[in-house]
Amino acid sequence: MARGYVHVYTGEGKGKTTAALGLVVRCVGSGRRAAVVQFLKGQVCAELGGLGMLGGRVNVSRCGSSAFVTGAPSQRDIAHAREGLERARSILADSTYGVVVLDEICVALSLGLLDVGEVLGALRERADGVEVVLTGRGAPQEIVNEADLVTEMRKVKHYYDAGVRARAGIEH
Amino acid sequence: MARGYVHVYTGEGKGKTTAALGLVVRCVGSGRRAAVVQFLKGQVCAELGGLGMLGGRVNVSRCGSSAFVTGAPSQRDIAHAREGLERARSILADSTYGVVVLDEICVALSLGLLDVGEVLGALRERADGVEVVLTGRGAPQEIVNEADLVTEMRKVKHYYDAGVRARAGIEH
Repeated sequence: MARGYVHVYTGEGKGKTTAALGLVVRCVGSGRRAAVVQFLKGQVCAELGGLGMLGGRVNVSRCGSSAFVTGAPSQRDIAHAREGLERARSILADSTYGVVVLDEICVALSLGLLDVGEVLGALRERADGVEVVLTGRGAPQEIVNEADLVTEMRKVKHYYDAGVRARAGIEH
Repeated sequence: MARGYVHVYTGEGKGKTTAALGLVVRCVGSGRRAAVVQFLKGQVCAELGGLGMLGGRVNVSRCGSSAFVTGAPSQRDIAHAREGLERARSILADSTYGVVVLDEICVALSLGLLDVGEVLGALRERADGVEVVLTGRGAPQEIVNEADLVTEMRKVKHYYDAGVRARAGIEH
């Protein structure tokens, strides 16, 4: 099996996690399994329901608390992120996955919850045929250098700036 | 029901159609139906299989031939695009849809297969509660002006530039 590529979806605009979810839809549609490891997300959200409908072919791990990390990260935030990385490491080593999404891992990196060297190590140890997708604002340069494909979601216009709040079924 | 918003995902980078597919996953996960009208796409692709697994809640229409439009569009290309717009118009008027994706419609507009005034008319006549998602390179300014949210997928790095070809299950 050929080596899978590393994708990064970063930037301030909307569409990073959804682009990763779309890759999961294509992967599952092509008959393979996919996995999503969500960093910093413990809240109930509609995407879980949708992923759950994909014929039991998507393994979802949620490694975060129900609150946003604001200010200095707590020991609990760090423990959650490390748990996510360990989970990611074992999933990435499993060649039955066609696409593995490390959702919001770039945010976990920029908050200092994870060490970039350790993340690079996990990426490099992935099994052949596993395509990895990293999302979140503020992708560190080391991750950009490692990636085969990087898209910056540039915010041209966002309804948040007009006061719209995040909505279930659209934003999460 | 509140008015749904208009999203545009445009630019040269990867992630436009996949971001729209991710919104479909969230919509279906929140218990609503979604629709995808694909312009310029007639080829068999893995995303269809994935969407088909979402509990019969996604209505997919494909309005294109199996070949890419290169050079001057044919009468057949124009007929396909017009058929897509008529399909989109009736779907957008149906408030049972939470998300309606008009995939690659920006490309159809920039190739001159559709009239921007007619597309704006269809968008403005949508039923309350229908969120519309337009994808494709080269979104015309009139569409950007109409949208509530616009993300430009900026290509920072793409493996196509390293000679990688589109792969089933990842690119389509």
